[in-house]
Amino acid sequence: MRDVVIVGAATTQFGRAQWSLLKLMAEAAHGAITDAGIERKKIDAVYVANMGSARNNRQAGIASALVDRMNLYPVAADTIENGPASGASAVKNGFLAVASGMYDCVLVVGGERMQEVNNFEATEFVSYLSHRFAEYIYGITLPALAGMFARLWMQKYGVTSEHLAMVAIKNHANALLNPASHLKMPIAMEGLLHSPDSAMNNPFVADPLRFFDCCPVSDGAAAVLLAPADLAKNFKKTPIVISGIGQATDTQAVHERPDPTVLTAVQTASRKAFAMAKLEPKDISLAELHDAFTILEIAQSEQVGFFPEGEGHLALERGVTQITGKLPINASGGLKAKGHPVGATGVSQIVELALQLRGEAGKRQVKNPRHGFALNFGGFGNNVVATILSKGA
Amino acid sequence: MRDVVIVGAATTQFGRAQWSLLKLMAEAAHGAITDAGIERKKIDAVYVANMGSARNNRQAGIASALVDRMNLYPVAADTIENGPASGASAVKNGFLAVASGMYDCVLVVGGERMQEVNNFEATEFVSYLSHRFAEYIYGITLPALAGMFARLWMQKYGVTSEHLAMVAIKNHANALLNPASHLKMPIAMEGLLHSPDSAMNNPFVADPLRFFDCCPVSDGAAAVLLAPADLAKNFKKTPIVISGIGQATDTQAVHERPDPTVLTAVQTASRKAFAMAKLEPKDISLAELHDAFTILEIAQSEQVGFFPEGEGHLALERGVTQITGKLPINASGGLKAKGHPVGATGVSQIVELALQLRGEAGKRQVKNPRHGFALNFGGFGNNVVATILSKGA
Repeated sequence: MRDVVIVGAATTQFGRAQWSLLKLMAEAAHGAITDAGIERKKIDAVYVANMGSARNNRQAGIASALVDRMNLYPVAADTIENGPASGASAVKNGFLAVASGMYDCVLVVGGERMQEVNNFEATEFVSYLSHRFAEYIYGITLPALAGMFARLWMQKYGVTSEHLAMVAIKNHANALLNPASHLKMPIAMEGLLHSPDSAMNNPFVADPLRFFDCCPVSDGAAAVLLAPADLAKNFKKTPIVISGIGQATDTQAVHERPDPTVLTAVQTASRKAFAMAKLEPKDISLAELHDAFTILEIAQSEQVGFFPEGEGHLALERGVTQITGKLPINASGGLKAKGHPVGATGVSQIVELALQLRGEAGKRQVKNPRHGFALNFGGFGNNVVATILSKGA
Repeated sequence: MRDVVIVGAATTQFGRAQWSLLKLMAEAAHGAITDAGIERKKIDAVYVANMGSARNNRQAGIASALVDRMNLYPVAADTIENGPASGASAVKNGFLAVASGMYDCVLVVGGERMQEVNNFEATEFVSYLSHRFAEYIYGITLPALAGMFARLWMQKYGVTSEHLAMVAIKNHANALLNPASHLKMPIAMEGLLHSPDSAMNNPFVADPLRFFDCCPVSDGAAAVLLAPADLAKNFKKTPIVISGIGQATDTQAVHERPDPTVLTAVQTASRKAFAMAKLEPKDISLAELHDAFTILEIAQSEQVGFFPEGEGHLALERGVTQITGKLPINASGGLKAKGHPVGATGVSQIVELALQLRGEAGKRQVKNPRHGFALNFGGFGNNVVATILSKGA
């Protein structure tokens, strides 16, 4: 298996796009190509991560459409879908394409234009990830699953609404330092917990989760360019090594898990990624976790292996996960505030790690990072991809 | 790159399914597992080919859902979408996963349940493959593109309606020998060309293409199990080698091609597959081509390299492409009569070749085949995957 490196990385502005899904994807792709400083004709294959274009944007075969939009034909092109973990799955498949020796230069683009349908439709669409006969037909949504998960977590570990709010406050603050982020809005504890009378209206979405515990519905795209390590010297930027990838699935219906607070797929995917990278959680300099809901950042920070069971919210309290802390989590703003254009998210996590490891993360730069960890969480944790990036020797 | 072989293959009945997409996929998957004679726990990763579950079946993350349905978690699982070429793209990505050394035993399942929406909706859905701003918004459909393509082909090469009908008649006859086929209905020249007064009503769908020139809208699933060649001795069936894979893209809008009768992506994908397999068209014992419309079998039979330009319909006339001919094409019945459950089609072509190369194709068995060729055609030829399978030494 050949070593694979990231030689280019870029993201669009996340938020409410005024243009088409293809234009968003092309912008991110051109950004990654420019970043790498290569000729487009060097590209051998394209992987596109997208969850909903056939349903929400009336476009199927979106990878083929992107290749046409960018005049990249006749390169190979496929679309990878793995719900909200589509992005990391596409990077994984791009990695395999290079690692196998079949292709050299592979472009991976994740993108989603959620706001072509309204927010109610977006929630309905995302609920297609739930179990069709055990969950969906009874009206479950992803926020509802996350609400029940949060309630269990609070009861089991003493997590409070203040802890949830701390995640949101931290990630909104980080997003202010990220030009590409969707939400650029500082929030404070006072405003969050005293609705609806306070200045900031923060109603319940799915008790105990409030509006500011949930990520926004975003449009956006992100892209990385992959190449074999031995070709990396031909590119402009410091190559960043994909040192570990782990993927794991779990039961689709959450109530079928022996303990619904245990995200087995998070644990397994992380363990596999660490084993492949020959690293341990303590070696990680920064992490991008999948905080579609604030509780998930706390839960994942433990189950990836960064903090002992029941102590994720204590580490958060102590500031360990701040950009200046020992293990910065979601320096980018995370899904919570950078935004969550579903197919783009996993790729954008990897873009963030690559920029951080190169020292190009601007005002949100983490000090001297060596290894970065990304967790992309599909369904309600039924398909999880963990990716570890490392600075070259 | 490790050599990769097919160790198990199976298909469901194609047609109008009485059950869910997941049940169809699970049936094909269990078939391939049983065929290989392995323990399910040997499976490391699952690739699912599907085009429309999020739009037509209210299910996203269908690969994760299948893993749950089959109790295969925690294996890795991703969905691959490449329009009507999703199946071959999924086999390609399964191939890369094994070839890279990352996974040993990989299950590839293609499936589609088209009839959960009605036929008008199915045609609308498939038209999402056309160029959104240059084709789709003007009301183009895939049958309309194929009709214009057929008209050009008839003018250029002297192909007649009788030639188109010959493809349909041959493939309907072959499908009668295939228990899994959707259409089990012999047709004859007389009935096809004298509608609406004849016994068989065959109206125009998109002039010059008539009803019997178009594939049906089918439900179905197919699956193959892949493994590295050096592990193949542990399995029950004769391993079939994936000896060549080629993929190529083209402009999305058909009118942008210098000559719309030239399917450049078919030519390029085929050339790449032959180069990888170190074979030539004359070495191929049988082919499964993508006859979603009858004209496509004739066009592809030339542009893959089997017959000289403008002579595909002459070879057809002479019986060369019959099961008993020198180069049997669509012995399975093809998309035309076996059926075309979009995501399943590319996998089912490969299942057919594997069964033929093993000598297990029953009444439609081709005599002593050595190498089989499959062409899976995405969009209107804007993303094409060619796959060559070979009998082991």
